[in-house]
Amino acid sequence: MTRRPTLAVVGATGAVGEVMLQILSQHADVWGDIRLVSSPRSAGRKLAVRGEETEVAALTEEVFEGVDIAMFDVPDEVSAQWAPIAAAKGAVVVDSSAAFRMDPDVPLVVPEINPHAVRLRPRGIVASPNCTTLAMIVAAGALHAEFGLSELVVSSYQAASGVGRAGAETLRAQLSLVAGTELGAAPGDVRRVLGEDTGPFPAPLALNVVPWVGTYGQDGWSSEELKIRDETRKILDLPQLRVSATCVRVPVLNTHSLAVHARFEHEVTVPRAHEILATAPGVVLFDDPAAGNFPTPADVVGTDPVWVGRVRRSLDDPQGLEFFVSGDNLRKGAALNTAQIAELVAAEFMPL
Amino acid sequence: MTRRPTLAVVGATGAVGEVMLQILSQHADVWGDIRLVSSPRSAGRKLAVRGEETEVAALTEEVFEGVDIAMFDVPDEVSAQWAPIAAAKGAVVVDSSAAFRMDPDVPLVVPEINPHAVRLRPRGIVASPNCTTLAMIVAAGALHAEFGLSELVVSSYQAASGVGRAGAETLRAQLSLVAGTELGAAPGDVRRVLGEDTGPFPAPLALNVVPWVGTYGQDGWSSEELKIRDETRKILDLPQLRVSATCVRVPVLNTHSLAVHARFEHEVTVPRAHEILATAPGVVLFDDPAAGNFPTPADVVGTDPVWVGRVRRSLDDPQGLEFFVSGDNLRKGAALNTAQIAELVAAEFMPL
Ligand SMILES: NC(=O)c1ccc[n+]([C@@H]2O[C@H](COP(=O)([O-])OP(=O)(O)OC[C@H]3O[C@@H](n4cnc5c(N)ncnc54)[C@H](OP(=O)(O)O)[C@@H]3O)[C@@H](O)[C@H]2O)c1
Ligand SMILES: NC(=O)c1ccc[n+]([C@@H]2O[C@H](COP(=O)([O-])OP(=O)(O)OC[C@H]3O[C@@H](n4cnc5c(N)ncnc54)[C@H](OP(=O)(O)O)[C@@H]3O)[C@@H](O)[C@H]2O)c1
Repeated sequence: MTRRPTLAVVGATGAVGEVMLQILSQHADVWGDIRLVSSPRSAGRKLAVRGEETEVAALTEEVFEGVDIAMFDVPDEVSAQWAPIAAAKGAVVVDSSAAFRMDPDVPLVVPEINPHAVRLRPRGIVASPNCTTLAMIVAAGALHAEFGLSELVVSSYQAASGVGRAGAETLRAQLSLVAGTELGAAPGDVRRVLGEDTGPFPAPLALNVVPWVGTYGQDGWSSEELKIRDETRKILDLPQLRVSATCVRVPVLNTHSLAVHARFEHEVTVPRAHEILATAPGVVLFDDPAAGNFPTPADVVGTDPVWVGRVRRSLDDPQGLEFFVSGDNLRKGAALNTAQIAELVAAEFMPL
Repeated sequence: MTRRPTLAVVGATGAVGEVMLQILSQHADVWGDIRLVSSPRSAGRKLAVRGEETEVAALTEEVFEGVDIAMFDVPDEVSAQWAPIAAAKGAVVVDSSAAFRMDPDVPLVVPEINPHAVRLRPRGIVASPNCTTLAMIVAAGALHAEFGLSELVVSSYQAASGVGRAGAETLRAQLSLVAGTELGAAPGDVRRVLGEDTGPFPAPLALNVVPWVGTYGQDGWSSEELKIRDETRKILDLPQLRVSATCVRVPVLNTHSLAVHARFEHEVTVPRAHEILATAPGVVLFDDPAAGNFPTPADVVGTDPVWVGRVRRSLDDPQGLEFFVSGDNLRKGAALNTAQIAELVAAEFMPL
């Protein structure tokens, strides 16, 4: 069989979906039909993909008729319910939600790191990692391949759009209220002006940082922090890896960053780490702080790779390396990785 | 000798100076005369302290005539030049700049941790730590006293006012330009609108995070990151302590935060860490994430203590503890700690 597979994009109208349609329009076109799907709320809207206006259909069993590959860019509970239905209809599901990532029968794939894992998918579902894991794992994985990772301590600087459209809209609205005022220096005044309604965030985000992302996990850890640990272990196939993450939301619209402290089994050097990162696929090395070159969301947003800078060896530990990564949470952190996985699956339909 | 010492506040017109005048007006009044000093730029201005309008004098040798204690809240190079002059005139200098912190003949004092150190001051100068060190050290020091600290990995979320008035003004101006626009989602658009002039920061700060604070240190480390390591070692008298810091500026006006990963010589438990932090002087424990209680700058700004939350034991290490701290960089991070040191010295003038 050699044919262009039919693709469904479920959640085409969301923050990830919007970027997915751009990517589908820009990447080499491997697709036959592309169907766009959303909830009944957005059904009937017309969106451009590959230069064609395409009508969005409401999610039903019927939309998967004849679909070879279905990308799911929808909330966890929607994926949990509908991905198995799509798979039962014969589609290979590539899911960007958290619903199946830790299912032992679902591979969790980062094409730069474990592309082979995509082929073993007993449930017909392949999962794409969390956006925060993705911002860090491509660089950490490349270093691991040479030095052998033994511990990660990471702190995140996560953008508002990590919770979807509503997140970015909330931050924009809050910034309009505080900008041009004297607010932010006196106790409580940001809360007073922004009011009780902090949208999808558990505290005001404008002029603030919020050290809580996701839901309550266990023993004081947030779900997002546990995801970084669990997903990193699964992707790198290091079930005992020590991981401590602290996840913090910052008033940035798009692009997550992480400060990473990595400990390895072997001694590391900055020159060798630079060589590895400079040639790792999906990574841009941008590391010359004396010249003002380090990754920031303002420069990284809208680009495909993750950017790495601030690479330095721990001063008190020859096996320790520090670095700072920034990656667009809607691109490599979501749509791009999902598209890359889907393209791996699509290649099965079109053997060389 | 029992008398109220005469105080000079050098840098009374700066960001730290402004908060210092509030503190001097609010704390128990132990002072005789208070003289306000600035550069010739601000000399002649009248500022309120202890309810009285007081004229600001330009910095000269003469202003130290008869001064017992001189607080310096001025740039490093001004302290470096003028603190020894004030000391030669007989004043005890309490310096909030970095000029003398690592001088072996100058004690580096955090009154909650090493108040005794204030008495041994061969140069007549006492130094107050960097604002980022101060946001973390009160909590870390209390835990160290019980568990024995062996390693710190910290990532900071530092406010614009950490570089003084110019920092806060730059962030406000940038926010006015980006708020209400669609900027921030496309590559390069924040830079395009804000232009080349990013003020005292090496990159745009609005809608961004900037992983570079201070000047170039060594081997890729920033001066701010090295300060955290050096000052923590000196304050806790742990010259071999392993410290890895990553310092990042965030679009917050006042109040620095840090995500802290601490490793101890002894096993830690969260209940015991909570007990220690709940009773540690200068610390507020605010740790119930399920109820939405964790420190954020919006709640901490303008308050004296450092707030600690997100306390949890490392999942893979019974000797590891994670926590998140926020402290107002202009209060405990600067003016308050300097005032506390000055009050310790003032007590020498008024024995019980
Ligand atoms: N944002 C990120 O950085 C990021 C990163 C990695 C993974 N993810 C994951 O990607 C998924 C999508 O996130 P997002 O940020 O794009 O969210 P979003 O902006 O809120 O978009 C949600 C999408 O799901 C659709 N949807 C919601 N409920 C539905 C239902 N009952 N049936 C069918 N479609 C439904 C929405 O359609 P309507 O327009 O009809 O409402 C919309 O297209 C989530 O699982 C998220 O965890 C997000
Ligand atoms: N901001 C923080 O969070 C923080 C925290 C810890 C420590 N510190 C340290 O505290 C010091 C002051 O910082 P800041 O944030 O208050 O800075 P700032 O807002 O820029 O204020 C600087 C102050 O120094 C005065 N000054 C400058 N040059 C002078 C000179 N040649 N002679 C006399 N006075 C001079 C200024 O007077 P004019 O009004 O006349 O210019 C002003 O009062 C710095 O060493 C800083 O590193 C700051």
